[in-house]
Formats: sequence, structure tokens, C-alpha cells
Amino acid sequence: MTDVPLDDRGFTLGHGLFETVLWTEGRLDAFDDHAERMRRGCRALGLPLPDAAALEASAHEALAAAGKPARAAVRLTWTAGSGARGLDTPVPITPRLTAQAAPSAPPAEPARLAIARTRRNDRSPTSRLKSLAYLDNVLARAEAQAAGADEALMLNTAGEIACAAAANIFWIRHGEVFTPTLEAGVLDGIIRRRVIAACHDLGLPLHEVFANPGRLNGAPMFITNSLIGVRAVSDLNGSALPTSPLVSRIAKAVSRSR
Amino acid sequence: MTDVPLDDRGFTLGHGLFETVLWTEGRLDAFDDHAERMRRGCRALGLPLPDAAALEASAHEALAAAGKPARAAVRLTWTAGSGARGLDTPVPITPRLTAQAAPSAPPAEPARLAIARTRRNDRSPTSRLKSLAYLDNVLARAEAQAAGADEALMLNTAGEIACAAAANIFWIRHGEVFTPTLEAGVLDGIIRRRVIAACHDLGLPLHEVFANPGRLNGAPMFITNSLIGVRAVSDLNGSALPTSPLVSRIAKAVSRSR
Repeated sequence: MTDVPLDDRGFTLGHGLFETVLWTEGRLDAFDDHAERMRRGCRALGLPLPDAAALEASAHEALAAAGKPARAAVRLTWTAGSGARGLDTPVPITPRLTAQAAPSAPPAEPARLAIARTRRNDRSPTSRLKSLAYLDNVLARAEAQAAGADEALMLNTAGEIACAAAANIFWIRHGEVFTPTLEAGVLDGIIRRRVIAACHDLGLPLHEVFANPGRLNGAPMFITNSLIGVRAVSDLNGSALPTSPLVSRIAKAVSRSR
Repeated sequence: MTDVPLDDRGFTLGHGLFETVLWTEGRLDAFDDHAERMRRGCRALGLPLPDAAALEASAHEALAAAGKPARAAVRLTWTAGSGARGLDTPVPITPRLTAQAAPSAPPAEPARLAIARTRRNDRSPTSRLKSLAYLDNVLARAEAQAAGADEALMLNTAGEIACAAAANIFWIRHGEVFTPTLEAGVLDGIIRRRVIAACHDLGLPLHEVFANPGRLNGAPMFITNSLIGVRAVSDLNGSALPTSPLVSRIAKAVSRSR
């Protein structure tokens, strides 16, 4: 499929979900985790559940259409399908699945973060879902770039640390690892889960917390998502951050768990 | 145009704006106001501005394709166009305009509202824009319907009254009219502006306020949008609301101003 009709609720209202899966070394990395997260999102939104086999077939079709790059991002989108005008959810829902693939290289440099004014809406269930309504994140990213950074640090509406515009966030203090709890308005990231497991395996204390941005002062940081894996952060709001050997230890442990 | 490509940022990220214009009595109601609001939204999002004549031509094409119903909703959608994968805004942006039209009847009954748990993100500029990222409103509407109502009352993240899922909201107390201020996370509605002007003409005090939902207790209410005009509210969370002759006076004044 190469187009979506104008009455698709993903297009008209952001009524749908997506997953971005890394294709590398001839396989879809953590595919089952992605399919399961999309199914959890569907339950939260009241959408019919996608069939994992159909998702996988669609991913392979998109990869073939893109000439099967060695390393690629495969985007799977699942919408509430076509519907009449207005907000009312169609009855029944006939969901629409689309897939795209594009070559994707891992970032060469550590991330430079800037705190965005646009806040993450932790008072909506959508803040914990990979939904199509991503405009706040687009705006936060644009703010960060305007400030000379390459990724945004988003706070939630209570002013607590939530996440990057397209990644989860971690910081290190006295040999212990911290990350915002999901209740702070955070996507349940697949690499985030792997970092938590890796810290457990490495015997590193890991805390899921509510925290104000002052907690980041002078702390080594890293961000994670399915395409970048673990990426160190070199500076925040233009100030250089210290590095920690724990970041590459965690990155290696996460990489081994793939 | 009948389809959008999969890489349209309206579809992938909700990166765009829309307007819903009422076609009635052989004309596009308040068309200039809609075009101007879309242009203001573009300035806020950093999108190129649509040409009003192109918007109008698109609206008429969509109406012709729909068989020119006597009363119709015309939706104009303006997205950031096609782009590469990821959140970064394309440089340059090549926006995409689409239009749809469908017959639309005014609601026969007053609205029954229920307060939704999903909150309006007043900490993002998108809360004041008619953007494609409408999923929070879709969820709020679904919550209201599950509670036996037909429209949601959304609070902002501070717990103050913001708006209905697809309308602005007003209430009356001691002959004075109240509505949430735009800073509460409210769309700058075209009928909302007309109500404010009508109250001025009628000599009715009109206050734009921050207010907690307790302020609504026992107050006659009405909601407004471009398709419904002024619609009375019969009950809130299952409790009947009093009526006020001011609602139909305001509705008549707004209707005359068309």
C-alpha cells in the first residue's frame, strides 16, 4: 500500500499507533516486543488488535520495496481506519495497516539536549503510547534544534523530567541509574526495558522516579530508542556533561541482549 | 485529491492543521475567518501559509465532488507535506492541501456533557491550534459516550475548565457570561469570537476566565463550534442543568451576525 484515503482517522485525527522497528543483521530486532507493545496500545485505545504475523509480513514487504537495506528503520502504522466526519469512533472499527522502510544509520556523535518549553501531557493516556498524535514532540524537537541542540528534553506538565522527543532518558549519580517512571508521562520503551534488565544483570541499582530537571545537574546522561540503542548525551542546554564508564558498560550489555 | 502518501507528516506525526467550514445557504460561512485562523496556526507551527484563494477553490471542488449538499461540513487540511523518517521538520517544507465535504445536519437536541479524565495539554501551543494531533479529544469524546453523554468537557492539566472535545464552552451566572480564557488551553473558536461580540452588542458582561469545574454547578451552559453554532447543554455528569433565556438570545444574535 502506498497511500491512505483522506478519511483515514490516522490522517484526520491522529487516531492510531505506530512502531519503528530496527532491521539489522538480517532480522527485525525485538519484533515480538514491538508487536506486543502495539497490542497493549490498542487495548488502551479500544482498537482491534493487529495480528503479529500480518505485522511481520507487512514489515518484510516494505523492506523488499525499499531494496532491503543492510540497516533500516521499518515503520508499522495501525490506524482506526476510515470513518465518517467528526470525533465519534466508527462502529465497527476497520483498522488500516501500513508499512514503510528506509535506510537508517546509527548516530555518530553523542546527543546534545536542550529543554523544550512544549510539555509532555502526562494527564492523557496518550503520553504512554506511541500514537500518531506526535505534534508536541515535533515542536519540542524543533525548539531544541533552534537552540543549537539535536534533541529535546521534554518535561511533563508538573515540570518533572519525562523523556526526549524521540527517546527515553537516563542519568547516573554515584554509580546508580535513574529514569523517569512511566507515570511521569513516558513511553514504555523497548530499549528502556532492556536497560532496566541490563542494570539488574550488572548489579547496578536502577530507580524509576519522579524528578525535577535540577536532578540532572552535572550527571552523566544517556538516551535510548529502538533505532539508536544507547546514545550518550554530551551536553544539556549548552553545558557539557561529565561522562561515565557505566554508559558504555550498559550499552554493551543491552547490545548483547539483542 | 483522494489519497495522501504514507510519508505525509500529517499522517505520520499529526504535523498539520485543519479547518471545518460550514457550507449553508449557498456559501462558505465565515470562510475568511477560517482561512485567517489557519494562517495564524501556520505561523505558530512554522509552516508555509496557505493561499486563501487556493483553500476556497479546494473547498468548492470537494463540495462539487460530494454533490453539493444543501448543508455540509467542508474540511480543509494543510499538512507539513512529505518528509523523511523521524521528527526533524523537512527543509524546505512542501505543504499538502486536501479537502473533503460531507452533508451535515445541526444537532436536534441539547448536548449532554460528561467531564473526561483525559486532560487538555495547556502546556503545549498545540492546545490553542486546530492541529491534526486530535487523539486526546477523540479519547475524551469516547469517555463521555461511555458515560452516557454525547460530548466531553475537558479540563486542562491544572484542573481548570478548558473546552468540549469539539467545541468551546460558556456558562451563565447572574446574567453574566463566562468562558475559559485562551491561555487555559483553548482553541480560538470562530463562533466563540462571535459570542463575545454578540454579548457586547447585547450589553451582557462577558468574562474570559480561569475557572475550576465547581464554578459550573447549577449554571446554564452552552457550547459552540462552526457546525453547530450555539448549542444548549441539558446536563452535566448526569445532572440536569437549568435553562436560561439568554442562551437563545445569544444564539439569535450570533446567527444574525453570519
